[in-house]
Amino acid sequence: MIPSKQDLLLAMQRVQPFVHETPILTSSMIDEQAGCKIFFKCENFQKMGAFKMRGALNAIGNLSEDQKKAGVVTHSSGNFGQAVALAARNLGVTAYVVMPENAPQVKKEAVKGYEGRITECVSTLQARETTSEEIRVKTGATFLHPSNNLDVILGNATAGIELFKEQGDLDYVLTPVGGGGLVAGTALAAHYFGNKCSTLGGEPFQADDAYRSLRSGKIETNVSTNTIADGLRTHLGDVNFPIIKALVSDIIRVEEHEIIDALRLIWERLKIVAEPSCAVPFAALLRKKELFKNKKVGIIISGGNVDVKNLPF
Amino acid sequence: MIPSKQDLLLAMQRVQPFVHETPILTSSMIDEQAGCKIFFKCENFQKMGAFKMRGALNAIGNLSEDQKKAGVVTHSSGNFGQAVALAARNLGVTAYVVMPENAPQVKKEAVKGYEGRITECVSTLQARETTSEEIRVKTGATFLHPSNNLDVILGNATAGIELFKEQGDLDYVLTPVGGGGLVAGTALAAHYFGNKCSTLGGEPFQADDAYRSLRSGKIETNVSTNTIADGLRTHLGDVNFPIIKALVSDIIRVEEHEIIDALRLIWERLKIVAEPSCAVPFAALLRKKELFKNKKVGIIISGGNVDVKNLPF
Repeated sequence: MIPSKQDLLLAMQRVQPFVHETPILTSSMIDEQAGCKIFFKCENFQKMGAFKMRGALNAIGNLSEDQKKAGVVTHSSGNFGQAVALAARNLGVTAYVVMPENAPQVKKEAVKGYEGRITECVSTLQARETTSEEIRVKTGATFLHPSNNLDVILGNATAGIELFKEQGDLDYVLTPVGGGGLVAGTALAAHYFGNKCSTLGGEPFQADDAYRSLRSGKIETNVSTNTIADGLRTHLGDVNFPIIKALVSDIIRVEEHEIIDALRLIWERLKIVAEPSCAVPFAALLRKKELFKNKKVGIIISGGNVDVKNLPF
Repeated sequence: MIPSKQDLLLAMQRVQPFVHETPILTSSMIDEQAGCKIFFKCENFQKMGAFKMRGALNAIGNLSEDQKKAGVVTHSSGNFGQAVALAARNLGVTAYVVMPENAPQVKKEAVKGYEGRITECVSTLQARETTSEEIRVKTGATFLHPSNNLDVILGNATAGIELFKEQGDLDYVLTPVGGGGLVAGTALAAHYFGNKCSTLGGEPFQADDAYRSLRSGKIETNVSTNTIADGLRTHLGDVNFPIIKALVSDIIRVEEHEIIDALRLIWERLKIVAEPSCAVPFAALLRKKELFKNKKVGIIISGGNVDVKNLPF
């Protein structure tokens, strides 16, 4: 079931008062190197440093008053935890955030700074899910999945809506693909607000579940997730996969060294601090230059919460 | 002799077609920490990565046709060389750029990329001046000083004009002080386009010539320039000093560790790639928090041309 344009507009109303309308940056040096015109939608400048603020706001904003009183719970290796903590604080709701012990320290500190209540667990999806479920049962809090939740997807779509409002004639829009919530939301925005704009995903070869899922027609999982793009290690879900199947044209896979090279270009040429995951769609574009030749391309820079003491270059 | 508002408007006309109107970024986390509301005017996103593009465009754009044919020459440890090379290419003029041998490789490569003709010399002001003069005599090119040139100062002022156009009610505007061209231009913009806005400069204790010049009433020089803020090692000149004396309220000095801490905040909280020099006015604000309490403050982020492989944190 594909959400309607009206659903997206309602999400926009809920999200807009609490977010930055993030700038769209361009670089003639990058365009020259890429052979096309790229519009970087900089969600690294979003509140709490990532697009995830949008999904969290829409999901929490759409709860009933009783649900809001009981709070929300999520598990996250980083950005969605921060997003839920800050969005919940904005809306006067308690946020319980389950984080793997090995999550970056800067992300744990940010969740605490936003008054999120952290519970740490071991770094497996199973441990995260079990711990979240325990909290849900104990507190009555509503569980918010970082990517497989329709309200989260619709909230994410608002970044794309802003992008198309400013650049209505994009030929392609690219996002990273982790859990699938951003690419699904962006594809919805392109469908309703673009002008024959194709949505593509970028994914590491080291975590190419979405690429394989699109080909097999069912949700595939990753055996290993040995990629620097730490935000892209999760897999698709039953809420976002139907949207992705219907509206995402393809997934382009990239090697780790291509991610690092693209990341360095983003830092040095675009002058922004962006997470490795953000570089994946740009790396995909550089890998398939011929496809994008002389086209107008939007790329969602998904987040900028990175420890600058620990860079891959 | 203080330039007129009309002089600034003419510079704006010359510069505007070739530059980005750079975004102004804010961060509620930074504001909380600083105790005031800060508007960062991000000239690190400017063409070639720094505000210096504005001064170079205005100075070259204001040459006669005969002068343009003979070309321009400058000496620069980095950003102004790139600015002159790119501005000259935009206007169809040959640019000769004298650079110290130890200038960052990334800056040398950028000058070459913009078709600037580089001559290297040893890393002293005297060698830079002598080498520039030799080229000037040989080619007939017009010498452009990076900061002590009225057209450069007026071009620099256009960043401030844009800032005040968007935020007309700033109480303070802060810039780094190196050669004095940015602080002089910004002070002019504040004088004509601000509303009782004071202009302040930030300067390293390790290169505090402007601080001492304002106090002695004459241009002082630096004995040593042992600061990480490599853009701020130069001294004031007879063109910009009268403007600074008339329109800059004060210079605030900061320690090296304060510059590094402020730089890291800019990277991690504002999510932008900025040069160490850019962090100096922000460090000055953090050092004198009580002065800025609850005020609205503009800070010009001067440039982002930094080697991300060689960071101080």
